Amino acid sequence: MNSFGQKFRFSTFGESHGNALGCIVDGVPAGIKIDEKFIQSEMDRRKPGRNEYATARKEGDKVEILSGVFEGQTTGTPIAMVIFNENQKSKDYTNIKDLFRPGHADFTYFNKYGIRDYRGGGRSSARETAARVAAGAIAKLLLDELNIEIRSGIYAIDGIESSIFDFDYAKTSDIYSLDKNKEEFQKEAILKAKNSHNSVGGVALVNVKNAPIGLGEPLYYRLDAQIAAAMMGINAVKAVEIGDGIDASKVKGYDNNDQIDSNGFKTNHSGGILGGISNGDDINVKVFFKATPSIFIKQDSVDIYNNEVSCELKGRHDPCVAVRGSIVAESMMAIVIADMLMLNMSSNLKNIKKVYN
Amino acid sequence: MNSFGQKFRFSTFGESHGNALGCIVDGVPAGIKIDEKFIQSEMDRRKPGRNEYATARKEGDKVEILSGVFEGQTTGTPIAMVIFNENQKSKDYTNIKDLFRPGHADFTYFNKYGIRDYRGGGRSSARETAARVAAGAIAKLLLDELNIEIRSGIYAIDGIESSIFDFDYAKTSDIYSLDKNKEEFQKEAILKAKNSHNSVGGVALVNVKNAPIGLGEPLYYRLDAQIAAAMMGINAVKAVEIGDGIDASKVKGYDNNDQIDSNGFKTNHSGGILGGISNGDDINVKVFFKATPSIFIKQDSVDIYNNEVSCELKGRHDPCVAVRGSIVAESMMAIVIADMLMLNMSSNLKNIKKVYN
Amino acid sequence: MNSFGQKFRFSTFGESHGNALGCIVDGVPAGIKIDEKFIQSEMDRRKPGRNEYATARKEGDKVEILSGVFEGQTTGTPIAMVIFNENQKSKDYTNIKDLFRPGHADFTYFNKYGIRDYRGGGRSSARETAARVAAGAIAKLLLDELNIEIRSGIYAIDGIESSIFDFDYAKTSDIYSLDKNKEEFQKEAILKAKNSHNSVGGVALVNVKNAPIGLGEPLYYRLDAQIAAAMMGINAVKAVEIGDGIDASKVKGYDNNDQIDSNGFKTNHSGGILGGISNGDDINVKVFFKATPSIFIKQDSVDIYNNEVSCELKGRHDPCVAVRGSIVAESMMAIVIADMLMLNMSSNLKNIKKVYN
Amino acid sequence: MNSFGQKFRFSTFGESHGNALGCIVDGVPAGIKIDEKFIQSEMDRRKPGRNEYATARKEGDKVEILSGVFEGQTTGTPIAMVIFNENQKSKDYTNIKDLFRPGHADFTYFNKYGIRDYRGGGRSSARETAARVAAGAIAKLLLDELNIEIRSGIYAIDGIESSIFDFDYAKTSDIYSLDKNKEEFQKEAILKAKNSHNSVGGVALVNVKNAPIGLGEPLYYRLDAQIAAAMMGINAVKAVEIGDGIDASKVKGYDNNDQIDSNGFKTNHSGGILGGISNGDDINVKVFFKATPSIFIKQDSVDIYNNEVSCELKGRHDPCVAVRGSIVAESMMAIVIADMLMLNMSSNLKNIKKVYN
Repeated sequence: MNSFGQKFRFSTFGESHGNALGCIVDGVPAGIKIDEKFIQSEMDRRKPGRNEYATARKEGDKVEILSGVFEGQTTGTPIAMVIFNENQKSKDYTNIKDLFRPGHADFTYFNKYGIRDYRGGGRSSARETAARVAAGAIAKLLLDELNIEIRSGIYAIDGIESSIFDFDYAKTSDIYSLDKNKEEFQKEAILKAKNSHNSVGGVALVNVKNAPIGLGEPLYYRLDAQIAAAMMGINAVKAVEIGDGIDASKVKGYDNNDQIDSNGFKTNHSGGILGGISNGDDINVKVFFKATPSIFIKQDSVDIYNNEVSCELKGRHDPCVAVRGSIVAESMMAIVIADMLMLNMSSNLKNIKKVYN
Repeated sequence: MNSFGQKFRFSTFGESHGNALGCIVDGVPAGIKIDEKFIQSEMDRRKPGRNEYATARKEGDKVEILSGVFEGQTTGTPIAMVIFNENQKSKDYTNIKDLFRPGHADFTYFNKYGIRDYRGGGRSSARETAARVAAGAIAKLLLDELNIEIRSGIYAIDGIESSIFDFDYAKTSDIYSLDKNKEEFQKEAILKAKNSHNSVGGVALVNVKNAPIGLGEPLYYRLDAQIAAAMMGINAVKAVEIGDGIDASKVKGYDNNDQIDSNGFKTNHSGGILGGISNGDDINVKVFFKATPSIFIKQDSVDIYNNEVSCELKGRHDPCVAVRGSIVAESMMAIVIADMLMLNMSSNLKNIKKVYN
Repeated sequence: MNSFGQKFRFSTFGESHGNALGCIVDGVPAGIKIDEKFIQSEMDRRKPGRNEYATARKEGDKVEILSGVFEGQTTGTPIAMVIFNENQKSKDYTNIKDLFRPGHADFTYFNKYGIRDYRGGGRSSARETAARVAAGAIAKLLLDELNIEIRSGIYAIDGIESSIFDFDYAKTSDIYSLDKNKEEFQKEAILKAKNSHNSVGGVALVNVKNAPIGLGEPLYYRLDAQIAAAMMGINAVKAVEIGDGIDASKVKGYDNNDQIDSNGFKTNHSGGILGGISNGDDINVKVFFKATPSIFIKQDSVDIYNNEVSCELKGRHDPCVAVRGSIVAESMMAIVIADMLMLNMSSNLKNIKKVYN
Repeated sequence: MNSFGQKFRFSTFGESHGNALGCIVDGVPAGIKIDEKFIQSEMDRRKPGRNEYATARKEGDKVEILSGVFEGQTTGTPIAMVIFNENQKSKDYTNIKDLFRPGHADFTYFNKYGIRDYRGGGRSSARETAARVAAGAIAKLLLDELNIEIRSGIYAIDGIESSIFDFDYAKTSDIYSLDKNKEEFQKEAILKAKNSHNSVGGVALVNVKNAPIGLGEPLYYRLDAQIAAAMMGINAVKAVEIGDGIDASKVKGYDNNDQIDSNGFKTNHSGGILGGISNGDDINVKVFFKATPSIFIKQDSVDIYNNEVSCELKGRHDPCVAVRGSIVAESMMAIVIADMLMLNMSSNLKNIKKVYN
């Protein structure tokens, strides 16, 4: 249950304030060149402490590969990667040891398991997503061999939506904004919330270019369903939309259908997915992050004995989890696409004969 | 890949115009009384031809149980259910044999598999969802033993949103509307689109009452992730939202957090799920259906040889798939909850000892 | 849990005396020609009532395909097959309704599930294996496209071992004996046991020709491990051996190793599998069936209230389940090989590029 | 595919001469006390270099727990364990870099993946089984809470079979022999083979005491099938037998059936499993290991260019892998039983109500 994917499959471990976190990536095809610098550069995009828009916790998030790579190439065996935690301040959490932070998983973990590693949220902390980015980097190295590109950026912060979708610009933006004209307003919203001990939500946009036609295994491992699971499973995500999504529920069929000519689809309302299968067009997915639950305003809560208490948090937190979350969403998309690529190979006899004859 | 769920798991088969469709439901605990009338009543809620807001295709959707039930009770063995198709008009589809209907899966299925059962959309038809409702009915019989209730209704049609959420009223409404005051406007939107050979989209709301705390297996079989997969995998769904969802990305953390007192959560912005685990409050999920792609207005398309053609559909189609789709969403929710209930049993040693000591 | 396989995956349903049994075969590649006569001929090899060496129960075991095949070809969608039961005599079982037959699953099913379909053993009856043969026939049609052949025969009955392994002869033998010189003695053993109301055990040999090198997914979906699971999971099987197997535990390393020259392996002690992966040589597996537990000699047992009772069986039973069981073992082998073929496709980047470039 | 189990599930990583090997154990219930000394003591039973009957490679096999344990107890989150390699001598393997050792997986890995970590067999080395023992130790801590005991010992070496089955004695024996009267002959066989640069095979017996009735998920996750997969998947295993197994194929039904009286089964020919489900009696399984393929006698082979070469091995190897393999078999059994215990919890409504009411 701590694994994701069928053929390209990763399993993660680790808690926010434990010794280490990491993952095993299983099913990686042999023969992929492993560029460790690239993996680290992906980690750096997500890592905390980058600037004032993120948490002040400083982590190098240095990935160590323990297995599965030989002489610079994948061997087809599991790739284990580990990231040692460096900058925990567990004592920040002793005051919440026995109480449930509003908006957090404290209450549900305690009730489900009867025990809870309260330090930094333990397993439920977004710190675990570092492992997803490491796994995603491996997926990207595979996709790169097939010229498939995964990109992301911030579509909205605190309701301030981007009007232009410039993924190249996003890479250079402190908050990964897609729209250089909106970026300042979005930044301002983050800082304003931060300064008032509050937090804001946001929306990431993830895009796939050059996905082959045919990805997605109907009917219950459809591409859209698996993307939805991947995205909704990211910390703080509360909604997922594919293509026109929500708007598609408000327009007429004629306006939402993508008509076709001999050059392909004339529009892309569908977000590149029809019947749960990629149609070759760009895949576009919006991922909605709630405002960070960790805020420094006093809140009402109870402790594990159901005594009413006042909850005042310490610690270091992102004022807007969507920013670093966008990198996680991008990584999860890479993993979904890699998995679907591998699964699709046996969909018809022609492909099977290509491999075996 | 045509299976869904881990412990409570169903697998479906069948095409729109084949002999039959159906499912095997595996993992059903022994000792549940099987009320066949209830199963049929669930089928009837989804079945076509009920009224002018649905397709004119008439199907009895009579479920036949082939296995797994003995003397009126489940035995722990797989329950196979079959529904024979009765009212196919395959000739309606001969004109689209070689062309790709815009907004449909024709293009993607043909490219993925190299062959396509064009009759009524074959496997990609929403007709398959009858099997999901049959499986969902079994799940509901289990949930009923634990006093867990699953309900649904139409939240919006063509952008016309409900303001009140009356699940009891929805049961009696021709279009399962939650809001008796908006129902007429919503109906009107459907008929208007239908009369102009077009279609409309809509939004279903699914609600779970009395879900125990602790459902959901973090981190990659979280309750929210699995709900997202279940819903996004329904035909025509393009977005899924849990709790305040989209709005949660626009408000501040303080306003989105659900504070707690000794009586429980004071609000339910989270939609009953924290950290991917149920918190005991109502689970609320919105499911966004695009407008039906089958419309009777002439559209541009290509055939399988990439010749440009004009696409004019015949056949019988729902002007708004969200209506019957809401029942499918409700069924899928029942299945997710049943699955999670069973998975959660071994989450801690105390539960294990309850069963074995 | 009533499913087998990862990519080529089947799920079965049905009880011995229920309306029907059958399966859904999922993951079948599109584009395979479905020869229904071949499928039926496979069923006929396993079906009861063929001759005096088998049970007298007469079943046509006629397979009906409900889905997944269009214009004679597979479409990539699930293939559902159903076999209606015709010749049940459930009243033969009313006297054992409340008692546990020695050597049968009555005791364990009752204790696990709290309820038991006692008619003919219900789900635990070998009748279910008809569905495995149907699924195996589909697998064979795929393997045939790649020139891979699966064969079987009886290696031993009641300890009388074959000295020659003639799979062609086995096809024509009433008891599928591999050795025409031993066949009469083996037959005699069966009839002698039958006439004294007793039963005998036996051993099937299953062989795969032309399996490609590379099948098997180490380390926990190894080819040998999955074959072992497939075979041990057949009713009445109590041991499985690959290659020299048991003897390999008694000889020296030098004598057991298969040395290699430029023409390949010089011997095949390994049974075609090294490190859990096929090496291109013949795969040889022995499957040990216990003597049929259904015998007509009076035995001691208890009823469901733990009262001691005398157990006297009625009904019609195989005096040696290994005979028809060999066909089931052959079918399961076909399914394992088909599954592994599909899984292996993504094992290295070169193969992936063959499909996508 | 490097994972094993459904609910109690572990995934391993690592190569013989890589930095480290280890595993993630997922699905471990919260609330189990983790006794690290016990885990290490299990590792020590399997570790190399213990005495003259094992390889001379010295490894501390010190397990480091990276996650999933908090204040000495499991938290329900994944337990990652890592073992750093200390005593590799990779240069022993440079001479076999390009050639295929007879009896080893070199040939199959190279052909499957197109690349091979030749150092010590890479991933195909039995060194990986250290991770299985670590995972098995966690399983044992769970089983201990329910008073279920897993034991093992050597049943035969080089064909010299034990006549008494003293699991307590086995624990103290250098070669884990079950029979103190045969131990010396078994030891002698090992040393004689070792001194002539050859190797011997052997058989381990694994036993489970106090398994509850009802373990095993029919029909395709039966207890016997999963045990067979677990055992056949251990390096060098070529046959698996449950209960009387092979002998059960040679006796009459009357003699093989276990009759029942009010005290339970009067005999245990079945090895504690009926219809794939545990019957409460001792579970007995024999595991047949081939003679170690690594021998120091000159053998014929080919290199990766199919040139014929003479293969002369260096390095340090067990003269009989069955000895240390028996500990691995015991560990795998613990894992299978733990998994089945958890899976069985939802088999009937009564159990479900025990947990939720």
